[in-house]
Amino acid sequence: MSDLVLGMDVGGTSSRAVIADLDGRILGRGTAGGGNPTSRGVGPAMTAIGAAIEAALAGGAEGPIDRARLRANVIGAAGFGATDAYAALATMWHELGVPGEPVLVGDVEVAFASGSDALDGSILIAGTGGVAAAIIGGTLGPMADGLGWMLGDHGSGYWLGREAIRRTLQPGRDPADPLGDLVSQRLTGTSLTGEWVVDRLAILTAAYALEPVRLSEIAADVVAADEAGSRQAGEILASAADELVTTLAGIHRPDDGPVVVLGGGLLSSTRLGELVADHILARWPRTTLRHTGSGAGGAAWLAARNLGIDLPASVHAALTRS
Amino acid sequence: MSDLVLGMDVGGTSSRAVIADLDGRILGRGTAGGGNPTSRGVGPAMTAIGAAIEAALAGGAEGPIDRARLRANVIGAAGFGATDAYAALATMWHELGVPGEPVLVGDVEVAFASGSDALDGSILIAGTGGVAAAIIGGTLGPMADGLGWMLGDHGSGYWLGREAIRRTLQPGRDPADPLGDLVSQRLTGTSLTGEWVVDRLAILTAAYALEPVRLSEIAADVVAADEAGSRQAGEILASAADELVTTLAGIHRPDDGPVVVLGGGLLSSTRLGELVADHILARWPRTTLRHTGSGAGGAAWLAARNLGIDLPASVHAALTRS
Repeated sequence: MSDLVLGMDVGGTSSRAVIADLDGRILGRGTAGGGNPTSRGVGPAMTAIGAAIEAALAGGAEGPIDRARLRANVIGAAGFGATDAYAALATMWHELGVPGEPVLVGDVEVAFASGSDALDGSILIAGTGGVAAAIIGGTLGPMADGLGWMLGDHGSGYWLGREAIRRTLQPGRDPADPLGDLVSQRLTGTSLTGEWVVDRLAILTAAYALEPVRLSEIAADVVAADEAGSRQAGEILASAADELVTTLAGIHRPDDGPVVVLGGGLLSSTRLGELVADHILARWPRTTLRHTGSGAGGAAWLAARNLGIDLPASVHAALTRS
Repeated sequence: MSDLVLGMDVGGTSSRAVIADLDGRILGRGTAGGGNPTSRGVGPAMTAIGAAIEAALAGGAEGPIDRARLRANVIGAAGFGATDAYAALATMWHELGVPGEPVLVGDVEVAFASGSDALDGSILIAGTGGVAAAIIGGTLGPMADGLGWMLGDHGSGYWLGREAIRRTLQPGRDPADPLGDLVSQRLTGTSLTGEWVVDRLAILTAAYALEPVRLSEIAADVVAADEAGSRQAGEILASAADELVTTLAGIHRPDDGPVVVLGGGLLSSTRLGELVADHILARWPRTTLRHTGSGAGGAAWLAARNLGIDLPASVHAALTRS
């Protein structure tokens, strides 16, 4: 029987595992709840990660997978920094009978690997948050932004929501622009009254009553308003693209590798993703642009590469197909 | 006996009252704790406001003041918007035996009046927060920013603190710049280690453990670093000045009145105040620049003006002297 690798993509809302052979064939898949030990707690995180692994080991049409065939693994995860979570992960690992020790790498490294088989390049992610990182010789180099909602994440979903509220409350805004009403509906459940003092108080009261990260929900309204022809939304998206490319520029060294991988919900098949791609190609014309694929597949690719075998690009493509 | 006016400046941390005659002579002063009913609660706020009035009525060297001489009053206060606070204030007012009804105006109107006796002009305030407002015919016109720490207050103390952390965590920052160490000392109690990943985690952990508004405490470190020659701090202050003048430009109509009053701890005798003043004079060369004075005195001036008597500028100067 051929050698197998295990790849995982562990996030705050889901944990995904794939088991694949070195031809890129996926033999088992598993999905469970969020596995970030910082946000979920160590116990629930380990339960989720373990459940995803067991589901993958159950295999597909060819039946259960012999865990002794697993030669390498990579787990892409955030939230393992400041806790005793790694020890708990290793204990759970041995209880499951998975060979070797769990190999943890950062979620941005796995995201890069899901989009490119290059050893060098940069990744830019914009979703709820925003971060860029350089990948140098296959490992994580300098990062820019990723500072969270309070301090940074410029151009991210939170930032878009904040800008949308700011512009809605700006004196002299165009009352015909559809963005303000979408923001008001989202926050207060009603349309703008047109009385600025009343609207301002209602929107501020509703916004400060929310957990701050929930401002990122307004990002969907910015995208919708832009599609409906809102000039304000278009300006916000253009500014977000500037901010994100500035974040990327903080770490991108195009001479080391021309690959830039774009990831996160805001950069995949949206207007913001197009704007960012245009900016990047205008600034660094020789860029090879890629989008992220399956994170668990990217982790499986990293695991396979760690075996020291020279694998063709077709294996990368097969593993990371979403 | 001559007619008197009562002026009050009620804020989140203190409540100040002055009683003055129409020549600008201050006959009584009182100070008590914070009187913002939203942040302090209605009960404690009324206790503080009442205590400040009673202290002012106790008078100075000439003894207690006959409250029957009070012809007008103005109370400049924030936080009376969405509560039953005004009714509680009126009840307290009558229990104290102060004639008439309490006349509430916004804190920015009183701040403008503390710096200028003009009926038209603009005010720009930068302290913990940042806001600009137009004063038109003696009453409050459009406002810009003032959206609070989460949504705005660009160029304010909170914003300065946030920018200082962002720059400290930026890849490729100059390690010799003194700002980073001041930020690290403030947040973690220790200097930067020089290991970027370690410093980044320590600073982010400490920053997110704080109540967000407390980032404004870092503003003092930005000012200190600038004085010590920090290029990063100088750049942050220059950006803050740009942001604040942009906020002002959102509402300032120089043809209506050339007066701009600057207020808040960050604009009085600081480098940021100088930068903002320079920007304003470069953009609107005919501006008459003023700084805020005694808020309670400004409220007393508004009360006197409400009597319909034409008062000389010397009375305004006497009332608002800090």
